Amino acid sequence: MKGSSKIRLYVTLLHYPVINKNGEVIASAVTNLDLHDISRAAKTYGARAFYVVTPLADQKKLVESIASHWLEGAGARYNPIRRDALELIRIRDSLEDVTDHIRSEGNGSPRTVVTCAKRHDGSLSYDCFREMLETGDPYLLCLGTAWGLSGDFISEADHILGPIRGNTDYNHLSVRSAASIILDRLLGERG
Amino acid sequence: MKGSSKIRLYVTLLHYPVINKNGEVIASAVTNLDLHDISRAAKTYGARAFYVVTPLADQKKLVESIASHWLEGAGARYNPIRRDALELIRIRDSLEDVTDHIRSEGNGSPRTVVTCAKRHDGSLSYDCFREMLETGDPYLLCLGTAWGLSGDFISEADHILGPIRGNTDYNHLSVRSAASIILDRLLGERG
Repeated sequence: MKGSSKIRLYVTLLHYPVINKNGEVIASAVTNLDLHDISRAAKTYGARAFYVVTPLADQKKLVESIASHWLEGAGARYNPIRRDALELIRIRDSLEDVTDHIRSEGNGSPRTVVTCAKRHDGSLSYDCFREMLETGDPYLLCLGTAWGLSGDFISEADHILGPIRGNTDYNHLSVRSAASIILDRLLGERG
Repeated sequence: MKGSSKIRLYVTLLHYPVINKNGEVIASAVTNLDLHDISRAAKTYGARAFYVVTPLADQKKLVESIASHWLEGAGARYNPIRRDALELIRIRDSLEDVTDHIRSEGNGSPRTVVTCAKRHDGSLSYDCFREMLETGDPYLLCLGTAWGLSGDFISEADHILGPIRGNTDYNHLSVRSAASIILDRLLGERG
């Protein structure tokens, strides 16, 4: 599968609609290292694009400012390898804008796969999703910031990916770690 | 293997001896989110401890200050789940101090396994390391910050773990992502 152009996996990190510690739906703030780490993982595993979703104007400006530093500014000269990853970033207002953009580029209508730290009935296994990707159909992996995606968002998705489990009962990975592990399970070499 | 107390994997993040962009050996600065993300991943996958190695007094103080905020300060009250992860942190000056500490706790003398983005002759596969861990022998997984561990450090280790490969030629993951993926490959549930 290495270097395969058949896989059409898109990644999106949503800052809305997510929940806070008290379960309330909020728009979260952008974290600099989310952009770096998830871009680099997306590039490593051959994702087609990395959409950063936030409806907040100031947060969109922040993402633009971080990305442009590494794409065009001093960062691009200092570390061109970082540029290769951050150029996967696309900023959008909402999930609808993301799927519209994927469609507009002639890549079909992606099915949405959400991540959640809790187990749901009928959740999708990693092996099964890996096989689905190998068909070449487009999929959009949706990751939530803060305390996770809202319940309504999760229930409207096409698939819910099973939670990542280690070998303990603790399952509070950062979204950066979760994104990396999920991409490795779906597209990493085995063995 | 879930909840097994047999596995004796220790994780260490080294800020010295690592190399900079020009291949020079340096002591790197501590990154706040390295501590959080790797602690949380170590806790999720049942690592016994997370050693942060730096010989620099001001950097040791910084690690202490970050950890104590979440262990005893306002962070502990705000988010006790974070405390459960950060209490795995131990601060040490050098690799020798780490192995001495593991031995002093009666856990035997750990074999060292280093990570490197390049492939080396005779490097250890993830499946093989997974089986070695299942014997219950103690192992110390060594992760480098900056542009990676120094050549001398790598050559003195007991084992060199194979590089993480996605399905592209790009392999520039953050150390936070690499740590998470490695722990998942070694100790995560399969399927």
